[in-house]
Amino acid sequence: MLRESKYRAPPSAGRPVELPGHFAGLVRLGRETVALTTDTVGTKVLLAEQLGAWEEVGEDIVGVNVNDLAAVGARPSAIVDTILCDRPRPDVFRAIGRGLGRGLRAARCSLLGGETAVVPDVVKGIDLGATALGYFPSGRRPVSGQGIRPGDVVLGVPSNGFHANGYTLIRKILSESRVDLRTPRPGRPVTVGQELLAPTRVYTVAVDAVAGDPGVQGLAHLSGGGVRNLVRLHAKAEFVLDHWPRVPGLFRWLQGLGAVADAEMFQTFNMGIGFALVVRPNRAAAVLQKLARAGARDARAIGHVEAGSGVSVPEFGVRYEGYS
Amino acid sequence: MLRESKYRAPPSAGRPVELPGHFAGLVRLGRETVALTTDTVGTKVLLAEQLGAWEEVGEDIVGVNVNDLAAVGARPSAIVDTILCDRPRPDVFRAIGRGLGRGLRAARCSLLGGETAVVPDVVKGIDLGATALGYFPSGRRPVSGQGIRPGDVVLGVPSNGFHANGYTLIRKILSESRVDLRTPRPGRPVTVGQELLAPTRVYTVAVDAVAGDPGVQGLAHLSGGGVRNLVRLHAKAEFVLDHWPRVPGLFRWLQGLGAVADAEMFQTFNMGIGFALVVRPNRAAAVLQKLARAGARDARAIGHVEAGSGVSVPEFGVRYEGYS
Repeated sequence: MLRESKYRAPPSAGRPVELPGHFAGLVRLGRETVALTTDTVGTKVLLAEQLGAWEEVGEDIVGVNVNDLAAVGARPSAIVDTILCDRPRPDVFRAIGRGLGRGLRAARCSLLGGETAVVPDVVKGIDLGATALGYFPSGRRPVSGQGIRPGDVVLGVPSNGFHANGYTLIRKILSESRVDLRTPRPGRPVTVGQELLAPTRVYTVAVDAVAGDPGVQGLAHLSGGGVRNLVRLHAKAEFVLDHWPRVPGLFRWLQGLGAVADAEMFQTFNMGIGFALVVRPNRAAAVLQKLARAGARDARAIGHVEAGSGVSVPEFGVRYEGYS
Repeated sequence: MLRESKYRAPPSAGRPVELPGHFAGLVRLGRETVALTTDTVGTKVLLAEQLGAWEEVGEDIVGVNVNDLAAVGARPSAIVDTILCDRPRPDVFRAIGRGLGRGLRAARCSLLGGETAVVPDVVKGIDLGATALGYFPSGRRPVSGQGIRPGDVVLGVPSNGFHANGYTLIRKILSESRVDLRTPRPGRPVTVGQELLAPTRVYTVAVDAVAGDPGVQGLAHLSGGGVRNLVRLHAKAEFVLDHWPRVPGLFRWLQGLGAVADAEMFQTFNMGIGFALVVRPNRAAAVLQKLARAGARDARAIGHVEAGSGVSVPEFGVRYEGYS
């Protein structure tokens, strides 16, 4: 966002709703509040190019955007996608389209339009991005995080691998270690390439089932920035993640290859938890039950809130103060 | 748009509104209908790079998107922008931000968020794009073009140069003719580069003043595709543009340099008219008056509708059947 643009539109354009610390922008239009998020798949496209596999990143286009809608409690409605490429590649476009379709299905969201531009002087290969539109069903208010207080419980929903974050570091480590993406890690049934391509888990259906619950006080998509995304929810709360689950083998394997410090890992990758919910303790069990019914049976308590600031993962000796 | 994705979301995601032939996608959310458009500035960024001038293309980010909202009769509410670049360039980002601010002011529209990604492995230089969100003020319906009939009048609003379309052809002609962008055309006070950079005229305030008028039957943003964009409005109407105004010198100069045929010019560039309105004859004078009061004093009748199909500009012997 270009913060230099301080222009305020007149009320006839709708009233922007301030929601500090979130990646989604909100505006009140007539009798409804809608939310917009925009993001790209980043350099994960280079892995797709290398492996000649495009469905997964097509699916990521949806996940990276709608999960940011979920983080304000909005329900995804529609996506518009942007494909920039250096040449027309019908087979690749079809594969991306199939993946996008899977993402839409997972997010229960429509494709409302898009733009495919062949711009060889601007883009190398393919860039994939989108904007997602969400709204607040009748009676639901945006979840801002401002009601978070000490004693609240932090729930986490597991990720599906690296999603679409940190691929610049991932590719650097793989390249320096000369890893063959077409072979499996020891004892694994699929290749490293397939593990790395796994599409972003879509959290919106599960989160939509609880976003209106009075006990739900904060929501965070642990994308770029990892657990630091929690810090954005409330300046005067410390998020103590003292029940972090076992870090998936893929993350530990990459960490070993690149000799990456824990503090770097937790602020670059999701480390196994892709979405977090901050919930009043007396509603935690009910929220977990609703999440399970909506498809997130693997959600679990991963920590709690204390007076203070920042976020910590004590088991790993990791602690961050601000967002960046 | 990836048309392979035929997935239909459940009604809980809102109901997409079919509006064939338009670049904006519409969805009914609760009690409101909203519209989304997405587009980039295309290869005009390469001209900005060459001239070291970024404000104009910053302004274009807004115009290219909100004018597509105007073409369905929606009022712009907000923009989210996407800047992809090969390296951080704070001065350039500030210039883009200033231009974006000017565009927002012209469109009376808010900046709701955005994404700036440094992705040197994907982008050369800078790519600028955005998504715009619009809505329909109480009582206004989307303007589809389906009510167009023979006898309707076509009004045109002048453009501000090439806007952000056709720059691949423009750059090719300039390069082959070895034009020095830092000198003026004969008798002109500004350089060719400055003329070519002129930002997209924003039509939304003027169009917003008439989009609810019962006489307004069709709206078209003459962007890429030029006058062919009119064809998309109605399959069984012929748009006869028999009062096309004098083509601006800049277009004629470029046409001469590149020896480009009229038929190519009119389907690549706006040729001096950037937005068209199809209006019942008995409302044409009133609509022109409203447009003038809303800032488009230079709007004028440029043609009429006959039974048939396609679009023609008789003075130039130009005629097109379909959209592409």
